[in-house]
Amino acid sequence: MSPERLRELLERVQRGETDLGQAMAELRSLPFRDLGAANVDHHRALRQGVPEVVFGEGKSAEQITLIVAEMDRAGHDVLVTRLAADKAAEVREHCPELCYLPVARIGRLQRKPPRARPCAPVAVMCAGTSDVGVAEEACETLAALGIGATRMFDVGVAGIHRLFDRVHELERASAAIVIAGMEGALPSVVGGLVACPVIAVPTSVGYGTALGGLTALMAMLTSCAAGLTVVNIDNGFGAAMAVHRLLPRAPAA
Amino acid sequence: MSPERLRELLERVQRGETDLGQAMAELRSLPFRDLGAANVDHHRALRQGVPEVVFGEGKSAEQITLIVAEMDRAGHDVLVTRLAADKAAEVREHCPELCYLPVARIGRLQRKPPRARPCAPVAVMCAGTSDVGVAEEACETLAALGIGATRMFDVGVAGIHRLFDRVHELERASAAIVIAGMEGALPSVVGGLVACPVIAVPTSVGYGTALGGLTALMAMLTSCAAGLTVVNIDNGFGAAMAVHRLLPRAPAA
Amino acid sequence: MSPERLRELLERVQRGETDLGQAMAELRSLPFRDLGAANVDHHRALRQGVPEVVFGEGKSAEQITLIVAEMDRAGHDVLVTRLAADKAAEVREHCPELCYLPVARIGRLQRKPPRARPCAPVAVMCAGTSDVGVAEEACETLAALGIGATRMFDVGVAGIHRLFDRVHELERASAAIVIAGMEGALPSVVGGLVACPVIAVPTSVGYGTALGGLTALMAMLTSCAAGLTVVNIDNGFGAAMAVHRLLPRAPAA
Amino acid sequence: MSPERLRELLERVQRGETDLGQAMAELRSLPFRDLGAANVDHHRALRQGVPEVVFGEGKSAEQITLIVAEMDRAGHDVLVTRLAADKAAEVREHCPELCYLPVARIGRLQRKPPRARPCAPVAVMCAGTSDVGVAEEACETLAALGIGATRMFDVGVAGIHRLFDRVHELERASAAIVIAGMEGALPSVVGGLVACPVIAVPTSVGYGTALGGLTALMAMLTSCAAGLTVVNIDNGFGAAMAVHRLLPRAPAA
Amino acid sequence: MSPERLRELLERVQRGETDLGQAMAELRSLPFRDLGAANVDHHRALRQGVPEVVFGEGKSAEQITLIVAEMDRAGHDVLVTRLAADKAAEVREHCPELCYLPVARIGRLQRKPPRARPCAPVAVMCAGTSDVGVAEEACETLAALGIGATRMFDVGVAGIHRLFDRVHELERASAAIVIAGMEGALPSVVGGLVACPVIAVPTSVGYGTALGGLTALMAMLTSCAAGLTVVNIDNGFGAAMAVHRLLPRAPAA
Amino acid sequence: MSPERLRELLERVQRGETDLGQAMAELRSLPFRDLGAANVDHHRALRQGVPEVVFGEGKSAEQITLIVAEMDRAGHDVLVTRLAADKAAEVREHCPELCYLPVARIGRLQRKPPRARPCAPVAVMCAGTSDVGVAEEACETLAALGIGATRMFDVGVAGIHRLFDRVHELERASAAIVIAGMEGALPSVVGGLVACPVIAVPTSVGYGTALGGLTALMAMLTSCAAGLTVVNIDNGFGAAMAVHRLLPRAPAA
Amino acid sequence: MSPERLRELLERVQRGETDLGQAMAELRSLPFRDLGAANVDHHRALRQGVPEVVFGEGKSAEQITLIVAEMDRAGHDVLVTRLAADKAAEVREHCPELCYLPVARIGRLQRKPPRARPCAPVAVMCAGTSDVGVAEEACETLAALGIGATRMFDVGVAGIHRLFDRVHELERASAAIVIAGMEGALPSVVGGLVACPVIAVPTSVGYGTALGGLTALMAMLTSCAAGLTVVNIDNGFGAAMAVHRLLPRAPAA
Amino acid sequence: MSPERLRELLERVQRGETDLGQAMAELRSLPFRDLGAANVDHHRALRQGVPEVVFGEGKSAEQITLIVAEMDRAGHDVLVTRLAADKAAEVREHCPELCYLPVARIGRLQRKPPRARPCAPVAVMCAGTSDVGVAEEACETLAALGIGATRMFDVGVAGIHRLFDRVHELERASAAIVIAGMEGALPSVVGGLVACPVIAVPTSVGYGTALGGLTALMAMLTSCAAGLTVVNIDNGFGAAMAVHRLLPRAPAA
Repeated sequence: MSPERLRELLERVQRGETDLGQAMAELRSLPFRDLGAANVDHHRALRQGVPEVVFGEGKSAEQITLIVAEMDRAGHDVLVTRLAADKAAEVREHCPELCYLPVARIGRLQRKPPRARPCAPVAVMCAGTSDVGVAEEACETLAALGIGATRMFDVGVAGIHRLFDRVHELERASAAIVIAGMEGALPSVVGGLVACPVIAVPTSVGYGTALGGLTALMAMLTSCAAGLTVVNIDNGFGAAMAVHRLLPRAPAA
Repeated sequence: MSPERLRELLERVQRGETDLGQAMAELRSLPFRDLGAANVDHHRALRQGVPEVVFGEGKSAEQITLIVAEMDRAGHDVLVTRLAADKAAEVREHCPELCYLPVARIGRLQRKPPRARPCAPVAVMCAGTSDVGVAEEACETLAALGIGATRMFDVGVAGIHRLFDRVHELERASAAIVIAGMEGALPSVVGGLVACPVIAVPTSVGYGTALGGLTALMAMLTSCAAGLTVVNIDNGFGAAMAVHRLLPRAPAA
Repeated sequence: MSPERLRELLERVQRGETDLGQAMAELRSLPFRDLGAANVDHHRALRQGVPEVVFGEGKSAEQITLIVAEMDRAGHDVLVTRLAADKAAEVREHCPELCYLPVARIGRLQRKPPRARPCAPVAVMCAGTSDVGVAEEACETLAALGIGATRMFDVGVAGIHRLFDRVHELERASAAIVIAGMEGALPSVVGGLVACPVIAVPTSVGYGTALGGLTALMAMLTSCAAGLTVVNIDNGFGAAMAVHRLLPRAPAA
Repeated sequence: MSPERLRELLERVQRGETDLGQAMAELRSLPFRDLGAANVDHHRALRQGVPEVVFGEGKSAEQITLIVAEMDRAGHDVLVTRLAADKAAEVREHCPELCYLPVARIGRLQRKPPRARPCAPVAVMCAGTSDVGVAEEACETLAALGIGATRMFDVGVAGIHRLFDRVHELERASAAIVIAGMEGALPSVVGGLVACPVIAVPTSVGYGTALGGLTALMAMLTSCAAGLTVVNIDNGFGAAMAVHRLLPRAPAA
Repeated sequence: MSPERLRELLERVQRGETDLGQAMAELRSLPFRDLGAANVDHHRALRQGVPEVVFGEGKSAEQITLIVAEMDRAGHDVLVTRLAADKAAEVREHCPELCYLPVARIGRLQRKPPRARPCAPVAVMCAGTSDVGVAEEACETLAALGIGATRMFDVGVAGIHRLFDRVHELERASAAIVIAGMEGALPSVVGGLVACPVIAVPTSVGYGTALGGLTALMAMLTSCAAGLTVVNIDNGFGAAMAVHRLLPRAPAA
Repeated sequence: MSPERLRELLERVQRGETDLGQAMAELRSLPFRDLGAANVDHHRALRQGVPEVVFGEGKSAEQITLIVAEMDRAGHDVLVTRLAADKAAEVREHCPELCYLPVARIGRLQRKPPRARPCAPVAVMCAGTSDVGVAEEACETLAALGIGATRMFDVGVAGIHRLFDRVHELERASAAIVIAGMEGALPSVVGGLVACPVIAVPTSVGYGTALGGLTALMAMLTSCAAGLTVVNIDNGFGAAMAVHRLLPRAPAA
Repeated sequence: MSPERLRELLERVQRGETDLGQAMAELRSLPFRDLGAANVDHHRALRQGVPEVVFGEGKSAEQITLIVAEMDRAGHDVLVTRLAADKAAEVREHCPELCYLPVARIGRLQRKPPRARPCAPVAVMCAGTSDVGVAEEACETLAALGIGATRMFDVGVAGIHRLFDRVHELERASAAIVIAGMEGALPSVVGGLVACPVIAVPTSVGYGTALGGLTALMAMLTSCAAGLTVVNIDNGFGAAMAVHRLLPRAPAA
Repeated sequence: MSPERLRELLERVQRGETDLGQAMAELRSLPFRDLGAANVDHHRALRQGVPEVVFGEGKSAEQITLIVAEMDRAGHDVLVTRLAADKAAEVREHCPELCYLPVARIGRLQRKPPRARPCAPVAVMCAGTSDVGVAEEACETLAALGIGATRMFDVGVAGIHRLFDRVHELERASAAIVIAGMEGALPSVVGGLVACPVIAVPTSVGYGTALGGLTALMAMLTSCAAGLTVVNIDNGFGAAMAVHRLLPRAPAA
């Protein structure tokens, strides 16, 4: 509630145009409303062009169907992350308009394409072919946010010439999401090559000493390349949302 | 080496203006030179207005003095991070122009102030008074990069009204560096309140189950607020460098 | 004290050779003599209105059926915790009076409702919808103990206005059970808002750095809000039992 | 702001007794004020008779002196926890009225004794003589809160008759704080003996597999005795604060 | 000793140039000469009355069948540990004389009962009903070694009177195998009650902070009762073998 | 059983209203009746010839002096374990009769030598020279218990011929305490060579992946040699006490 | 690009025999080409006689079929590691020429046998029968590289005479791959017996404290035998590749 | 073989009842007969030109002096690793011929230079200046073994052009020891560039998530570059010894 609106309300009370009950109802919801408004504004800002997001893991197909249907009725776009193929099939029986992206394991219901963001594409890089699922989760989340992605897959450090072949493309990116399992070395190399924001995503790819992704995670956090930041293991969605926070928004239409 | 310069070189060879030995010397260093150039360019981009950084921990006062003196001679600005007070005193005996910031544990030798970056200040928040050292490391690094900081200290979640008193300031920030030890809950709350980039820094503050900062680190990586990113424990410098990567650069003078 | 010595003592009493005071002194110092009684009394006190509890995990449907049937014959009420739906169905074929609560994963056989405890309801709060199973385990255990619960679900810190909307309700609670997975930040915020006992329950919700609930557990134990206490991961039952210990008992009928 | 006060304010506006500027000033601060008030009320409730608490570890004697002096000026009572003997001596040079308890490592500045709480003493038990420091931290914190403590030290499970000798005392306690290092078994035994609230405190006593207290912590959380709750390693202060939350308050004078 | 030297030595013996004492001295010091014999002797001593042991986990029914059949042909008794019920059924189709003990998960092929060992029975204690499988593995291994066992199940510390009811039996035992999951507190209590050897076995019973048995393991190793020893998680077989090492052997027939 | 009920029972006996059999039945079931005595007996059995043991680590020289002096007055023998040399010197200023063993870090006050135990010496083996302190702690504890020890030091598996040179001695031992840091492999080899009880002691010797002794500990617990048992890291005292439990006692004089 | 070829190119430019566009195309790919060439050379050296390797775990049968078919078309030999039997069956429906080795879990498509390497066989040793799968992965990888292997299985340290029976064979090996699960002690013993390169492979065999192979891994890294090196848990392939790096190559045909 | 049987065999030889071939066959199979010799031979082979090695950490200057003096008298060369500067000074007071290398923290007493090994130098690479101590430990150990080293320091992946500048040198190395702390990424890159043996050494350089070197260790073990092997954290000596095992020996003089 802006000062202007508050003053106007009080003037109406002063002039007797608004009775006390109505004024109190309006004011009583203030304590959290302004905060709410702030939140909502921010949420609006944060979510501008962002579909509602449902975390699909650990929810039944039935539960997901209910949520998606409800949001559909409310006119919201929806992104269901970590959605297994069999559950997606069940959900799509009732919500056929939900589009399923099997590699990214994302279900998407988006009425019209998001407005394109005014920036260069984001480089989404991954070290090995087994990291592609996480990379696609990042790419598709970016797509749903109106942000373009340049896929640079299978450019791990053990065959580092594959990375160098694409340095020029990399240099043009507005940000880089760098995904790696195993020893998680790729972000350190990329962080030394480019000046843009680099968000590192460890993956659970590997066995034994990979420790389910903890080794890559710890390696990325300990990177000798300054200014890297890191998200949770396999969290391609989170990396895309971090990019969403740092790129300029589309100007209001 | 740009295509233009390469063409020009070959034309000079073709026209006989450049002898083969000279051309070969120029070309032989190509394999890594262009890459180096790219790197250097990037480094230049990345380091535009950034002093050289020396990690002071585990180096003797003597070693640090040598490095600082050498960089001083070369005309580089220097930032020595994690520099203990007693070492700083020793270094300053030989390099009195090195300014020491005891809370941030930073030594700084900067001939002229950095060019101010064209953006709103960064909110540097910390949960408790014991996190102030890390927060100051972030603030002073930002300062050395020409980026302003709004200090919001002691706004931890156990007295959450202190945070809410400063929400409006927070909303104006171009990015937030959120520093917390103990259970590391502050970034989750901040991430839900604002839309800007939020970089979380766990600290080693606490005892027992704080596990030297690992608990805060893991909590931040697992945050339910989407799009947070995280750096190493106590790494205020790294958080500032991540901000440096994502904020717009000062236009070339 | 050997049977012989005891018999001899009693014979002396019988023959009037030992007076009662002396005999009692001798018997009273029998080590731990009263302890059993004390224990039994306490067990009675502790279990006043508490059904017998069977930990269902790792037991076969057959074993559970036997235990429930035996307790039923003995007239005891029974609570079977962590009881999977398929096992519950099997048990109910033989013990149809066992009522099954699928979300709480509790089987309950209670002949008459427990006597209501003389206190305000307990706030049972959880951060996300995935924590509801643990929250319901707490609520249903409380119900079986005659303690009312106010459910406040999905009030996690990333959308903290949802929590603040319910602060007044929270203030009226006689205790709060605060359940959260992921980074486990909710109990710290709640602990700073209210003065009543707060029992934190970490859940195994999350992936990667959630470490199966260890991250939330460690975060809660390290909380900067003073006077929180914590129970095992996913242990909604244990939290309810802790509340049972601290609330006043129903007066003897 | 209660509805009554809000109505009264609006009536004054309606009657022209309050001008708009004044009304707006009063209302503008609403968003966080009511929350703040709630907090403050709660804080007041929570802190009724509770001195301000300063965490002494990691602060210099100089910093502690400043804080204590400032609180002294403001008329607040102060408790400095985890205060090393040498720092305490330094602080006491400037604040001689700060009383130092070396075993509990607590500095206390309390003008008049706290009002006694209307409840039986709390049993503060510890397994071995090395746990006495943590036990004293709990006892002295309770004392500062007006809560009596019955010390039962050195009653560990390897000589369990020592515990049983004191069962009757234990039965009369309004709550039990059970402190143990090493394998941390004592709370399980106590939890099976008494019906009152039991708060377990692991300590860092031991070597090798004691893992700095983590073994005792994990053992306590996994206890087979229902309804135990646990606080951080060595956190005698936290256990006392948890007791403070669950015991009845002294009636307003 | 090279063949040449050996031949030369024997030739000297043959020619009478070296007397037998000298030759034996030379040969006796052949490195490790007696070792093999010693090993065999020891193995014989160690295995006196001990069936061959096959670790069943991770072997297919087919592989187990082959091994059992081969040992059967060679006249050896066999114990197959950690043998799942379905595999046992498959093995028994070909080796019907293999007797299967489902709770202990042991397959046993023993032609005649082992000779009884000249000692009192071993107390095999476990804290909860979920530990019974491990306890039975210990009991059945003891039985196959000719050692009697007194089963004391479900005597955990949270209801410590159940343990005390059986103290007299416990006192008569020649050794105690004490099995516990969860917090693993039982061995500490037993170790303080009796003077005989106490071997502690942690089990993987429990969830969350039980950490798959690591909590019980660490607690047992850190026990404050002196002279306890510990074996691997769930290793009832190993505990029985440790008892086998320490009890007197049956005299040669 | 309350005093009232006990008095009433005795009165009935006195009046001849209750016969002895019935009275005894009632009294015999007094829970834990004999337990105290049993405990004391056992403690006596367990401690026959065992000095009182004081854990010296974490206690001040002043505290140790007090305890030792008190025990000295009471006529008890004393063993102070983990006693640093400087503390020992301080204690010996007041208790000059305390003998200090610097390698074992044991202080011993024993008026007359313990009675020799009727058994062959115990083999105390260690893998490297850095394990000697722990080995001496075991040897000196054994000595204080009247048990002889054969020292076999520096027989680690990387030079396994050193071990084999002493196999015959090893075969004659009544038990083996096998001490090793680093990878902790020695107990597995010894356990395969001899049939006697083998108690493994991991040490904190090593760096990096030695993990302060956890690697050796885990390796020993996972040993493929059946029937090994393990004690805490560096716990030479505990291993000796375990041997004390399993060897025959000296016959009563 | 060798200096000779560069000079020749420039001479052609100088002489006008090569136009600028063609020269530039040739030179423009220099920056990474020379490096690539180096890599390729090395890769050629490294891979001389080495089939392409596909990591089969976490890939679908369909994906593996595509890759194998493509490589087959390109004339490359292929090794698919960690290939489950059921997937192998599916792949072989489309690529019947892929030979499947079930114990090694390797699929191999190799047109002609590799050229034999000029060196003695490699000793591939494993401690127990459960380690055979990893051992076979090593042996079959060696075979595909033209390197012979001497299998020494089931020679673990708990029955160390089995190892000593084969010492002479071991002494003739050009390198030793030593595979062990459980406590991982075998490499330390072997490392002390032979002078050749010893590569230790921990396996995930065991339960409880085996920690999925981490215990064996840490034990091997902490080995007291100097000069051992270690690879990832269960990584028989990696050990064979390490041997491949250190053995002499077959001379060019 | 018992003495009786041995005597009987020799008597049969003496009496001519057993021919030599049969006697030899019987004796040759004496278990482990030749083993000792074999061991000694091997040790000789393994240690050809290798000084005796003393692990200096955790030994007093006095102990080291004794060992060095004794070896000196026996004519052995000595290498003392992990020798702190102050201890070295003390030792050198009594053994002035011991040369101390402070960066490598090695004390060396070598009468004449070792014979040079017939192979190209080993590349000893490290990622940062803080790793130089470990690198020098490797270089000086190599030197003592007669193996040359090419130092390539400060070539970490965050400035990867520094590595590429030295690729040609690297390609000529007979083996590479690659040392890195922090995220430990360098060995992966090097392993992809060269075909020679690559031994990775993690260092304890870093803070927070570096976890004292565990992060680098785990990263190296999980490396995506095939055929890398790894040694313990900070173990430059071990890496040099591994190289010693794999390089050809100097021909016998």
